[in-house]
Amino acid sequence: VEARDAEQVRALAGDLHEADAADILVALHADDRAPFVSLLGKDFDFAALTEVDEQIRVAVLEELPTEVVVEGMRELDSDDAVYILEDLDEAAKAEILEQLPIPDRLSIQRSLDYPEETAGRRMQTDFIAVASFWTVGQTIDFLRNQSELPDDFYEIFVIDPAFRLAGTVPLNKILRAKRQTRIADVMNETSHPVLATEDQEEVARLFERYNLVSTAVVDEGGRLVGVLTIDDMVDVMKQEAEEDLRALAGVGDEEISDSVTDTVRSRFIWLLVNLATAILASMVISLFDGAISKMVALAVLMPIVASMGGNAGSQTMTVAVRALATREIDRRNMVRTIVRETTVGAINGVLFAVLIGIAAGLWFEDVLLGVIIGAALIINLVVAGLAGILIPLALDRLEIDPAVASSVFVTTVTDVVGFSAFLGLATWFLTG
Amino acid sequence: VEARDAEQVRALAGDLHEADAADILVALHADDRAPFVSLLGKDFDFAALTEVDEQIRVAVLEELPTEVVVEGMRELDSDDAVYILEDLDEAAKAEILEQLPIPDRLSIQRSLDYPEETAGRRMQTDFIAVASFWTVGQTIDFLRNQSELPDDFYEIFVIDPAFRLAGTVPLNKILRAKRQTRIADVMNETSHPVLATEDQEEVARLFERYNLVSTAVVDEGGRLVGVLTIDDMVDVMKQEAEEDLRALAGVGDEEISDSVTDTVRSRFIWLLVNLATAILASMVISLFDGAISKMVALAVLMPIVASMGGNAGSQTMTVAVRALATREIDRRNMVRTIVRETTVGAINGVLFAVLIGIAAGLWFEDVLLGVIIGAALIINLVVAGLAGILIPLALDRLEIDPAVASSVFVTTVTDVVGFSAFLGLATWFLTG
Repeated sequence: VEARDAEQVRALAGDLHEADAADILVALHADDRAPFVSLLGKDFDFAALTEVDEQIRVAVLEELPTEVVVEGMRELDSDDAVYILEDLDEAAKAEILEQLPIPDRLSIQRSLDYPEETAGRRMQTDFIAVASFWTVGQTIDFLRNQSELPDDFYEIFVIDPAFRLAGTVPLNKILRAKRQTRIADVMNETSHPVLATEDQEEVARLFERYNLVSTAVVDEGGRLVGVLTIDDMVDVMKQEAEEDLRALAGVGDEEISDSVTDTVRSRFIWLLVNLATAILASMVISLFDGAISKMVALAVLMPIVASMGGNAGSQTMTVAVRALATREIDRRNMVRTIVRETTVGAINGVLFAVLIGIAAGLWFEDVLLGVIIGAALIINLVVAGLAGILIPLALDRLEIDPAVASSVFVTTVTDVVGFSAFLGLATWFLTG
Repeated sequence: VEARDAEQVRALAGDLHEADAADILVALHADDRAPFVSLLGKDFDFAALTEVDEQIRVAVLEELPTEVVVEGMRELDSDDAVYILEDLDEAAKAEILEQLPIPDRLSIQRSLDYPEETAGRRMQTDFIAVASFWTVGQTIDFLRNQSELPDDFYEIFVIDPAFRLAGTVPLNKILRAKRQTRIADVMNETSHPVLATEDQEEVARLFERYNLVSTAVVDEGGRLVGVLTIDDMVDVMKQEAEEDLRALAGVGDEEISDSVTDTVRSRFIWLLVNLATAILASMVISLFDGAISKMVALAVLMPIVASMGGNAGSQTMTVAVRALATREIDRRNMVRTIVRETTVGAINGVLFAVLIGIAAGLWFEDVLLGVIIGAALIINLVVAGLAGILIPLALDRLEIDPAVASSVFVTTVTDVVGFSAFLGLATWFLTG
């Protein structure tokens, strides 16, 4: 297909939804992506670029002539235009902005002036606002006569003469009302407006909590500056959940399309931290080298205690990290949760202590060894439960993201406690 | 507040949004929850019950008199009613259904007849459908004169005389069009209808991909049976992402409000599987007990090799599991991804081999020991990269959820390979 046959390409891919066009872009060889966009010309919907990974987006935009990009951007909603521009370097950004019509340029510039990951950055600046003294009939006539409306909208905003937000009216309410009804009588006052400087994750949580489809964005003076819609917030929610998952596994903000070098770099740091932890655990073991040389069974069994503790710790930690991220843990249920996790650790500790104690006792024909590994396991599972909940809570209090840092600390604690409890008890009772 | 003072409670909590009422319900002592609902009476919005954990919901519903529940359910949209009913036992379900008005009962029953976690279960059965030959004006007049409309809707469906879906019209298109425009001229044909029997996760992915706000649900004959809205799909997406996270950490479908017994039970199984893995690793170690008794340094260093492998393996695995869940890995990029992960493993393996090799060599003043641990680490990190990607892919091919089972297999592989590579090489070169 990439024999640069414009006719053919346009016939095949000209009519696709942006998400499908994005898929084609991703599947193409890197060298064919920009030509694909050029060949499609006016038939390429630049919104497709919002659906691909950052690396691919930036590469395609850098290869395309500025005129083509400017032409494509003119057709976009302001939020998509901002999304596409924000990752480019300053020079490229300025060059494109310069060639856009003034109204587009101003609204994009205004969004770009808000910090990354805020409501202001994500908002769409085209919206429909009417005065509260208008009637439903006037509003409908106004909509019929406007040509420059946003592609999709779900509510109309009501403003006062100073452009301050007074309320919102869902479209279905306008359709249900008689023409002569005043807008003020159908509008909702609780419209959950968000400040343009608010963090996008907080806003996404608001959408989820109140089942919103769109919401107004206001500046510090309460003036309406934009609108956020659910589709953008769905992306934020997805991104947030994935960040937690990746952070817990020690993977940075990587995409499946990242280069090998980027991936090596992002994972190296985590492995380095893990190396430090592992060396610490080794040092603990080396304290007991006398006992091990007298009784090799200790070396054989010790990984069991550490590994069970590590697993129990990450179970608790995962639940705690997600509960903190979704605000399910707060002051009211904190103590209850800590007690609960420690109890769970203790009960599982006793259950597994019996199992492993019997197994180890039979394996090495040594009852005392079975008792010691059982005791070490109980200690380590209780500590694992405590560490799994207290470490994320402490990090959260210190305003460090618990997802990123918890697992290192938890594993360090369970390794150190596991090895020293088992080897320490063994030294005391068996080989002393 | 819970001195059963109805006036007071109603004044304080009568006007709250359902999400806020749900929060109060959760914060109350278990014994006060049902009385709180009774005290609020008509002012309690039963939709709040869809926002609390299953355990709390079922407990409150079981305590309330059936009449109160029936009264509350009548006010609900059908999807919320189904959500509340589905977790009750058959007898309670039947009792409540019997007392509902016939149209409500039939639409709830129809949803309940679809399997759990399908589009049919989650859909709302109140929707607005018009014929394609109607005009925009007729449609608006129809909406103005209907009293029994759903609370919120974002599009109108177009059907043929056999109730088959012909297309959809977003509300904003109706508002923009002239009264005499025919519905057929403003409707969209690509309306992404979903089958009622389709899995809810697939549907959620469709919403995300095409930025949908609502979509029609049809039966096998193409007849319109309901509508799904984005707020329900947001819940599904959130649930799905959390399931993956929990599964990777070996935590079942648990909520922070679950009882200690439930939590112990759900985590016990995972710990048991982990115990089996740990014992397998111990057996590998015991094969080399001769070498360890001659050289205790081996016992001190061996956890480093296993732990680095385990971490590198779960990094790869986490990325692979999420990429499979979001369909970012498919046939086209599978081989590329496998090669990439193995290369990343090899590069990090070499980097850390040098680091650990030098550290171990200096620590135990034994150059050969340093070389051996380095070599074992390279082997284990390459294997970790391979296992981290191949195991999730294989499980996915076998139609087992990779999130649930991958980490056991990956850790088993990295433990066994790590211990046997290090101890095997050491036996061969050092203590033989």
